[in-house]
Amino acid sequence: MSKKVLIVMGSRSDLPAMEGCMKQLDEFGMEYQVRVLSAHRTPEAVLKVSSEAKENGFGVIIAAAGGAAHLAGVIASSTPLPVIGIPIQTSALGGMDSLLSTVQMPSGVPVATVAIGKAGPKNAAILACQMIGIGDAAVQQKIIDFKKAQAEKVLADSVVE
Amino acid sequence: MSKKVLIVMGSRSDLPAMEGCMKQLDEFGMEYQVRVLSAHRTPEAVLKVSSEAKENGFGVIIAAAGGAAHLAGVIASSTPLPVIGIPIQTSALGGMDSLLSTVQMPSGVPVATVAIGKAGPKNAAILACQMIGIGDAAVQQKIIDFKKAQAEKVLADSVVE
Amino acid sequence: MSKKVLIVMGSRSDLPAMEGCMKQLDEFGMEYQVRVLSAHRTPEAVLKVSSEAKENGFGVIIAAAGGAAHLAGVIASSTPLPVIGIPIQTSALGGMDSLLSTVQMPSGVPVATVAIGKAGPKNAAILACQMIGIGDAAVQQKIIDFKKAQAEKVLADSVVE
Amino acid sequence: MSKKVLIVMGSRSDLPAMEGCMKQLDEFGMEYQVRVLSAHRTPEAVLKVSSEAKENGFGVIIAAAGGAAHLAGVIASSTPLPVIGIPIQTSALGGMDSLLSTVQMPSGVPVATVAIGKAGPKNAAILACQMIGIGDAAVQQKIIDFKKAQAEKVLADSVVE
Amino acid sequence: MSKKVLIVMGSRSDLPAMEGCMKQLDEFGMEYQVRVLSAHRTPEAVLKVSSEAKENGFGVIIAAAGGAAHLAGVIASSTPLPVIGIPIQTSALGGMDSLLSTVQMPSGVPVATVAIGKAGPKNAAILACQMIGIGDAAVQQKIIDFKKAQAEKVLADSVVE
Amino acid sequence: MSKKVLIVMGSRSDLPAMEGCMKQLDEFGMEYQVRVLSAHRTPEAVLKVSSEAKENGFGVIIAAAGGAAHLAGVIASSTPLPVIGIPIQTSALGGMDSLLSTVQMPSGVPVATVAIGKAGPKNAAILACQMIGIGDAAVQQKIIDFKKAQAEKVLADSVVE
Amino acid sequence: MSKKVLIVMGSRSDLPAMEGCMKQLDEFGMEYQVRVLSAHRTPEAVLKVSSEAKENGFGVIIAAAGGAAHLAGVIASSTPLPVIGIPIQTSALGGMDSLLSTVQMPSGVPVATVAIGKAGPKNAAILACQMIGIGDAAVQQKIIDFKKAQAEKVLADSVVE
Amino acid sequence: MSKKVLIVMGSRSDLPAMEGCMKQLDEFGMEYQVRVLSAHRTPEAVLKVSSEAKENGFGVIIAAAGGAAHLAGVIASSTPLPVIGIPIQTSALGGMDSLLSTVQMPSGVPVATVAIGKAGPKNAAILACQMIGIGDAAVQQKIIDFKKAQAEKVLADSVVE
Repeated sequence: MSKKVLIVMGSRSDLPAMEGCMKQLDEFGMEYQVRVLSAHRTPEAVLKVSSEAKENGFGVIIAAAGGAAHLAGVIASSTPLPVIGIPIQTSALGGMDSLLSTVQMPSGVPVATVAIGKAGPKNAAILACQMIGIGDAAVQQKIIDFKKAQAEKVLADSVVE
Repeated sequence: MSKKVLIVMGSRSDLPAMEGCMKQLDEFGMEYQVRVLSAHRTPEAVLKVSSEAKENGFGVIIAAAGGAAHLAGVIASSTPLPVIGIPIQTSALGGMDSLLSTVQMPSGVPVATVAIGKAGPKNAAILACQMIGIGDAAVQQKIIDFKKAQAEKVLADSVVE
Repeated sequence: MSKKVLIVMGSRSDLPAMEGCMKQLDEFGMEYQVRVLSAHRTPEAVLKVSSEAKENGFGVIIAAAGGAAHLAGVIASSTPLPVIGIPIQTSALGGMDSLLSTVQMPSGVPVATVAIGKAGPKNAAILACQMIGIGDAAVQQKIIDFKKAQAEKVLADSVVE
Repeated sequence: MSKKVLIVMGSRSDLPAMEGCMKQLDEFGMEYQVRVLSAHRTPEAVLKVSSEAKENGFGVIIAAAGGAAHLAGVIASSTPLPVIGIPIQTSALGGMDSLLSTVQMPSGVPVATVAIGKAGPKNAAILACQMIGIGDAAVQQKIIDFKKAQAEKVLADSVVE
Repeated sequence: MSKKVLIVMGSRSDLPAMEGCMKQLDEFGMEYQVRVLSAHRTPEAVLKVSSEAKENGFGVIIAAAGGAAHLAGVIASSTPLPVIGIPIQTSALGGMDSLLSTVQMPSGVPVATVAIGKAGPKNAAILACQMIGIGDAAVQQKIIDFKKAQAEKVLADSVVE
Repeated sequence: MSKKVLIVMGSRSDLPAMEGCMKQLDEFGMEYQVRVLSAHRTPEAVLKVSSEAKENGFGVIIAAAGGAAHLAGVIASSTPLPVIGIPIQTSALGGMDSLLSTVQMPSGVPVATVAIGKAGPKNAAILACQMIGIGDAAVQQKIIDFKKAQAEKVLADSVVE
Repeated sequence: MSKKVLIVMGSRSDLPAMEGCMKQLDEFGMEYQVRVLSAHRTPEAVLKVSSEAKENGFGVIIAAAGGAAHLAGVIASSTPLPVIGIPIQTSALGGMDSLLSTVQMPSGVPVATVAIGKAGPKNAAILACQMIGIGDAAVQQKIIDFKKAQAEKVLADSVVE
Repeated sequence: MSKKVLIVMGSRSDLPAMEGCMKQLDEFGMEYQVRVLSAHRTPEAVLKVSSEAKENGFGVIIAAAGGAAHLAGVIASSTPLPVIGIPIQTSALGGMDSLLSTVQMPSGVPVATVAIGKAGPKNAAILACQMIGIGDAAVQQKIIDFKKAQAEKVLADSVVE
């Protein structure tokens, strides 16, 4: 059985923005679990969940947060698994705050950051499968099929008029 | 005896930038302790230090970090004490990354953010004393004296030629 | 009796944005006063109110302003009390102007800056109580209770499905 | 006799950056006075100087400051004279903080802002003379002569090789 | 009779945004003329209008434009009168493009820049009168009265509850 | 004979930064002329040069300027030729001011903007030849040869160790 | 017959934003073809289309994309034709991401970048015709007529009231 | 044997900045290959190398580029492997251009972006091993050991004085 994906978001209000992520994982037939945990309101719970993720059969952790978005970084601090950070768009600064506080991680603790905005959650799902696919040919095949279908769809539609 | 100030910085390389902070606390005669701890490399140690700070006689915590600067926010998550965040200037983005990841904290977990650059560390020390001074007349008097001396110095020097 | 909180805002139009601040102070049972004063239209009144704040029983001053947001800085110039600055979101620049003109204070005159946007006003109230709580165990206990309740609420709600 | 120009800067360390301003006023033969006063360290002195400027024979006030640059705005609050703001370049944010906190003034209290960087101080001097020149033909003539000489110098030098 | 104010805007679509400017000049009883001219579509007309403005009895020129906002700068190139630039808010970049292309003028050709957004047009009108008022006591008195009324209005309304 | 390239720069101090442009045109064997003219100090001269450029045998105009960089836009206003704008890097804002005031041109008056920094001047030369090459096979062949040589150089050097 | 214009856009959803481009080319009577191709989903198709564009009778390629906008750059890599890049406005960052990833091309591979926002697509069409017009007098005449009509329209409408 | 890491950089001049990446992979005992290939100067070679990477035994591709940094995105377009993007710091804009053109990828084609500046290359190496480690226990163990050693080093050094 393939490794599972753990999705953590900073607030239940991020759920609608994250639907594209879950939907894409469903399409790939991946198993995943969703947790709402805050780096700032429940730090111990975040450390517990992330430090146990590997033992619990997860291969990748996806973390979504906005503003001073510390969630992905704090999770990355306590797991050997790769952590994907999704910077949630914010009303005041458009998500520039989320992006910089997710991507500008210090030496030793990377966060694999994807785009602010609509593309981010779906791309996080694809990236998670690409990571798992390195050592899991069945998952990698799904990525290959996905990319092929995606290209065909664009090409079928490529001439206007 | 007055409450102590706890200074935490993300890296030993931040020490020179932080000297203005320690020097100002020395001038005010405040007791303080300096720790180098990383939100990303030693998360449990950070949570331990911050959750015990109140019992250990500290009144305020000052946290300095750069880039995806999570240190102040993580500390703020596990102490009832006010936390002052100093965004360290960075070479790539000038400290805009440090500033946004320090100040844009979510609802429920404030970080009292001061300026990027040279003014920040010294101002963090002054702010810490202003906070302690609310309930400690001796410390507040030092702030009153400091501000008076500062104004006099500017005024003595205010006419050019 | 606990020290009071003085709230100053630059314009009556900031009142709706500031409701989260007053509501949080009410929840903590803190006494506060609200003034509408402009650093630019009523500078003498601002200096008078801030220089008398300590004598009038205030422990902290919260100042909210947008654009070239000088209010917090001007207040900080004439009081030994800690001043919390709330950068109000602006339509043209999202509040980046408010943030920079609030936080980038020169050496000697700190402003404890909180987030632009919805989190700022509520967090200013919490921060004010954290400051007063340093020397006031009853207020500090309210912060401890608040943080515990907040964490429990997140945890109760943390697993999706 | 022509109206005088009052130059106020936030710190004696701004003097070298301001030399281009004084030199240009000298070239125009304008009378001026230079004061070092801080909106944050000596607010009453700033208000006194600016509120008396008109009675003291000044026609324009030039204010230079960096970071959370409140000096020009605070001066503008208490004088009917036009106030020119020079945003001083800063090491962390290049002067974007100075620019936004100088130019984004609220309704009712304009500051005539010039460029960050080397052009600013010289241009402030020219602008001050343009303002005085509206009602003072001798000063206006100097501007006309200056612009003509400037154009001739560029044109004499305009073909490379 | 007082000097007149010349208002130039880059596009007829800027008229609604500029109403605050005209209304304020009306309140001050100032005479003004409004022209729609584009630095990019009608450069000769802009140069003609600006180079003749002084002879036509104008004391100040106000120029409003958005995006690569060259209008104020081009006008400033060919008149000895002070030029006030209003950076019009833009949908893509919030007006940061308008602001930088208005304020960052090179040495020798200042533009007196006011705020992006709603405050700008009204403040341009006030600034124009402050400039004319240097040598015109009647106009200066209107500014004095305006500032006094403005302060009284804020103070009358300054206590909440 | 091929159409010539007209290079205009805002200041003689831009010459070193522009050497890469002239050198590349020399390598392509293109004829060009270099003028130093300022949109703000010599507006009439700029309009004259640009409105006569087509009659004088030029096919493209390259304009380089920094800060509130109006040169390319003003030239574009009075010629049917394509205008290439080079945003010169600035010390305060890194050239963001130059970029936005060059590229954000209003409807009807495009400026073909290239990169801030070292790549810009050389790329302006290449782009000018690409434009002339549309209707000039000999020039287009030079671009084809250049791109081939460039690719071969990268490939010859592409494996490290 | 004049050279044709090839328009490539990254997504069919960019079609409405690009209508101003097609409409302007129609007004100039230019022949053009529209393709929807993605630098990231169909890279080989993009390279094929761009490397054959010259042989297929195109004189200029216009490429429109948003976010990490690589389309124009990838096209420019494999054609000797000039490539015009249109940075599509984005909801999170306003199009600053599109602009920087379009304009900041490395040495050797220019992209002629036009404005973010409404002016960009129309200006790309004008710029394409200016480029073709260098060696095609009939097309150049259309630009001359267009600019004259545009100026007349502004002038006819230039006095308010 | 573990999957190999493919490192591609846009220019030989990026080699010094990338040393931290190679050094970290050496410390982990990972096999890797380094290629210098440009998305803009050698697009076919980039597509060939990336589309064959999986067959050639690579598990992850790391791509480093600056400015309009398309390299990672173009590689990601033609491989099912996860692609890590390193935004190289730039002199004009600090690397903000590199970051946005690397991270803001459209739906369907993620790039796992790490920090601008010194931390990025080292973190890319760690992230690559975390990805390979999902299905390769020996590599994952190296990450676990690395994180433990890193934490111990910080803790051993954590008290100042």
